[in-house]
Amino acid sequence: MTEAQTLQLKNAVHTIADYPKKGILFRDVTGILDDAVAFKLTIDLLKEKFQHQGYTKVVGTEARGFLFGAPLALALGVGFVPVRKPGKLPRPTYAEDYQLEYGTDTLEIHQDALTSEDKVLIVDDLLATGGTIEATSKLIKKLGAQAPHAAFIISLPDLGGENKLENLGLSVTSLLQYEGE
Amino acid sequence: MTEAQTLQLKNAVHTIADYPKKGILFRDVTGILDDAVAFKLTIDLLKEKFQHQGYTKVVGTEARGFLFGAPLALALGVGFVPVRKPGKLPRPTYAEDYQLEYGTDTLEIHQDALTSEDKVLIVDDLLATGGTIEATSKLIKKLGAQAPHAAFIISLPDLGGENKLENLGLSVTSLLQYEGE
Repeated sequence: MTEAQTLQLKNAVHTIADYPKKGILFRDVTGILDDAVAFKLTIDLLKEKFQHQGYTKVVGTEARGFLFGAPLALALGVGFVPVRKPGKLPRPTYAEDYQLEYGTDTLEIHQDALTSEDKVLIVDDLLATGGTIEATSKLIKKLGAQAPHAAFIISLPDLGGENKLENLGLSVTSLLQYEGE
Repeated sequence: MTEAQTLQLKNAVHTIADYPKKGILFRDVTGILDDAVAFKLTIDLLKEKFQHQGYTKVVGTEARGFLFGAPLALALGVGFVPVRKPGKLPRPTYAEDYQLEYGTDTLEIHQDALTSEDKVLIVDDLLATGGTIEATSKLIKKLGAQAPHAAFIISLPDLGGENKLENLGLSVTSLLQYEGE
């Protein structure tokens, strides 16, 4: 990824101060989606990195993971599997809880969505503490598939998600990093 | 669209009886996403229909509208604008309520997402009663943009959504129709 490409994507990310609460700098990826050139560059860069590596599925987590995961699956020529909030998937599911700042939440996957033959790329928009991706990775393992890598548009290494996922054996790629801000 | 293409897509749709409640036949599009060939065919058919018509944006509604809208925007070479549930968009928004079977719900759009220069294609997975798409269409009009057409993977004409949207001046395309079942 060239410096010009990094700058082009960073210019498309909106930064919103004090959202969702005071002291947080929120990185808003809707500007990348909105900008046809930046959106295409994002998917092209991820395709280039992950093609020809034997991936058979892309898994994305509701809802922003759908926005980048579905186009990337199409670009890689593989199917897309959604991981969703409770009660949204109509066939039998497995569920996995994860920690929020206050309390817990749950994610689900269709039980027949993957098999032990599948090599899965996990995609989400932004890596912060990594809780949802840890849960997603556990759901994929429950189905017997392997998920060696998770790809993000943005990561915030200060929040510890990269370390957490790498300690779980999950390699991490992010196109943009925001640190120490 | 050929009969073989229709059959290929219909074979990828799972039908679940009595979901989310007794007497409903739920049409589940996750099988299209999961099948790389059917997913590509879906996006190719929509691209073929809507390219070269001056569309400047695709708008998709959370969450399943993201799964088809984002790839279609990329295929058409235009930006994607998400319409989301309340509190999910970080910049200033407009909101629109719509009716559910019991009660109401609300959708939001970023105030700066579209301008009067924009010609918008609305995309969602499934057209039933059309309530969310009516609200989406109103949000687009609030921003001064035109949205002449809404595209769906599936429509259920028995539920009246097609008539409702056409009465609002919104043309409707659906790849698959399920009637009288």
